Amino acid sequence: MTPEESIALIKANLAEVLNPEIIDDVILKEKRHLRVYWGTATTGRPHCGYFVPVVKLAELLAAGCHVIILLADLHAYLDNMKAPLELIGHRVKYYEFIVKGLLKAVNVDISKLTFIQGSSYQTSEKYTMDRFKLEGMTRISVAQKAGAEVVKQMSDPFLGGLSYPLMQALDEEYLDVDAQIGGVDQRKIFTFALENLPKIGYKVRAHLMNTMVPGLGEAQKMSASEPESKIDLLDSPDLVAKKLKKAVCVPKKLEGNGVVAFVEHVIFRVVSLKTGGKPHFTVERRDEEPLVYDDIEKLKSDFEQDILTPQLLKAALTKALNEILDPIRNEFEASEEWKKVAELAYPPEEKHQKAKKQKDKGDPAKRAAALAAKAEQLNVKDDGGEAAP
Amino acid sequence: MTPEESIALIKANLAEVLNPEIIDDVILKEKRHLRVYWGTATTGRPHCGYFVPVVKLAELLAAGCHVIILLADLHAYLDNMKAPLELIGHRVKYYEFIVKGLLKAVNVDISKLTFIQGSSYQTSEKYTMDRFKLEGMTRISVAQKAGAEVVKQMSDPFLGGLSYPLMQALDEEYLDVDAQIGGVDQRKIFTFALENLPKIGYKVRAHLMNTMVPGLGEAQKMSASEPESKIDLLDSPDLVAKKLKKAVCVPKKLEGNGVVAFVEHVIFRVVSLKTGGKPHFTVERRDEEPLVYDDIEKLKSDFEQDILTPQLLKAALTKALNEILDPIRNEFEASEEWKKVAELAYPPEEKHQKAKKQKDKGDPAKRAAALAAKAEQLNVKDDGGEAAP
Repeated sequence: MTPEESIALIKANLAEVLNPEIIDDVILKEKRHLRVYWGTATTGRPHCGYFVPVVKLAELLAAGCHVIILLADLHAYLDNMKAPLELIGHRVKYYEFIVKGLLKAVNVDISKLTFIQGSSYQTSEKYTMDRFKLEGMTRISVAQKAGAEVVKQMSDPFLGGLSYPLMQALDEEYLDVDAQIGGVDQRKIFTFALENLPKIGYKVRAHLMNTMVPGLGEAQKMSASEPESKIDLLDSPDLVAKKLKKAVCVPKKLEGNGVVAFVEHVIFRVVSLKTGGKPHFTVERRDEEPLVYDDIEKLKSDFEQDILTPQLLKAALTKALNEILDPIRNEFEASEEWKKVAELAYPPEEKHQKAKKQKDKGDPAKRAAALAAKAEQLNVKDDGGEAAP
Repeated sequence: MTPEESIALIKANLAEVLNPEIIDDVILKEKRHLRVYWGTATTGRPHCGYFVPVVKLAELLAAGCHVIILLADLHAYLDNMKAPLELIGHRVKYYEFIVKGLLKAVNVDISKLTFIQGSSYQTSEKYTMDRFKLEGMTRISVAQKAGAEVVKQMSDPFLGGLSYPLMQALDEEYLDVDAQIGGVDQRKIFTFALENLPKIGYKVRAHLMNTMVPGLGEAQKMSASEPESKIDLLDSPDLVAKKLKKAVCVPKKLEGNGVVAFVEHVIFRVVSLKTGGKPHFTVERRDEEPLVYDDIEKLKSDFEQDILTPQLLKAALTKALNEILDPIRNEFEASEEWKKVAELAYPPEEKHQKAKKQKDKGDPAKRAAALAAKAEQLNVKDDGGEAAP
């Protein structure tokens, strides 16, 4: 890949890039690999939404970047105690297994990939002193606005949510990166970093922002009757099929369509990476020739005309997704260590409670409550597949 | 001193004691010295109001306590950046000089006195982890209420002011004390500590609270025309006399009378300590026998009847106060190190600006502004002579 091709791939498929000249300078003038970090708060079990940032990470690795994945364990606790402190160590391990598995499934070289656990440096004296500096000069309203689209919002929040954006800014300095990547929901934290790092003597970084992609298997916002049911990355092929069948996918409607969006932002790009830029997607049909797409626009146009129906698309996606998930599931099944970590990170007590609730199928009210509780548990953070910070 | 006398002196002259049984247990059952900490944020130059807590510290030392003085440099920065980070190191040294000087002036044995600088342990990994724990479980409103009477109040405060009470609670554990002492303005921080330390596995401490004493040389709250002008501990004898002459001291009125309060809470108690419990205070009169008081109630009653007029009282207090301040001034004059620290802690630029402003005496508006600026500078934190945290 030429430096120019590398830069093009780094900036491809993004909603927005702040200070893109930093990227150009590193690659063209300093002639070195770009160091980019992506932070993920180690909260609930990662679901299929994680494919969206991970595919971008795969593109960055393919473009020759050094990618640092921050396993943000303290952030996971600070954001409304989404992860209890006694579990964060196990969750960090679980996340490392699953993110590595995702990247391997996407078939990318991970030799320039580094995982760093937040608490390994975020309690250091130097980092702490920098937190003090920022706390002394940051007003409550500024910290709240910075975290508004990332940290759980409530009327009288915990202090942890205010520290969250300050730490995410500092992490850019402490991970010694040229750029940070996140969803566009991170934009206010990114601009907070741009404005505040120079105040304490640190340089500004470039910021890459992924588009927010509608969730897979997610109910429409106006309907509370069918709670969302995200697809876990270790769900069985049958459960994936079952959840995708229930996924909202209004015929002919592209807007807010999580199924079409997943095909566009995950399947097409994964195949493109695997084939060196030749995406294709096959939709089998009964008694007819299969529909074969090498262009997402043609797929969208067929969907709008109902040539490609939700049923056909879901069946094809189920097949494609299960193909990608297979090696992850296989690796999990083969790894005693990973299985043990999964038990420790997400203790069986919760699963047991969930199972118990779901058994009460006779009572529709109880069943709805059980489904809602399960959805709550599956819902890591957002709808767009972006993990924080 | 018997253990019972020791306990009585520890609890004497206080507005309130929380969990006094902790004190009794340490001295009567565990049969060891009580460890008490007093924190002072190293902000502006300490003024005469500092005598109020210091006299209580002297009583605690006299009662056999191990007294730890926390020179809270990070708190000084976190509370609205009252002390810039680049100056806190010097201010810590200045405060150590002045507080030691005060205690020596009060003639108390300081062999069981320890000074600790906040930043020497407040950036440690363990302390930082405990801060994270508290931040994760403390709501903004709770932290704001805790600091409401201590931290500078404003409509959209800095995050530092929210960390302030959390750290003050943790300091009890990290200084390994049985009790903390402060003014009653610290009450909400003390109850925050009582409620929250057990949540992260630490025991509750006793809390001793000094009465809030009206400031010396302070204008009445309703009058903005005469800005307060606190007496610096290193002011010359003449300047002390001049400032005391201007001090508000309404004839026959005891309520809010800072001059009478100072005689009661400082002079009487200092003399009592020096004489083993025999306070006396002499008021010289022209052409008449001096008034000699060994009982504050008699002094107050004479003041109410105007037998003891503000003029007589101020003259007598000027003499008594200058006698106490003399050794502090002498030590300062004799110490090149202290003088150098004073210059570094409170850089001459400020003094220069002040002097410049005060020269503009021709313009009444400018003069008022200059006086207000000076008052602002002299006003360490509060009106009651209590230093934070």
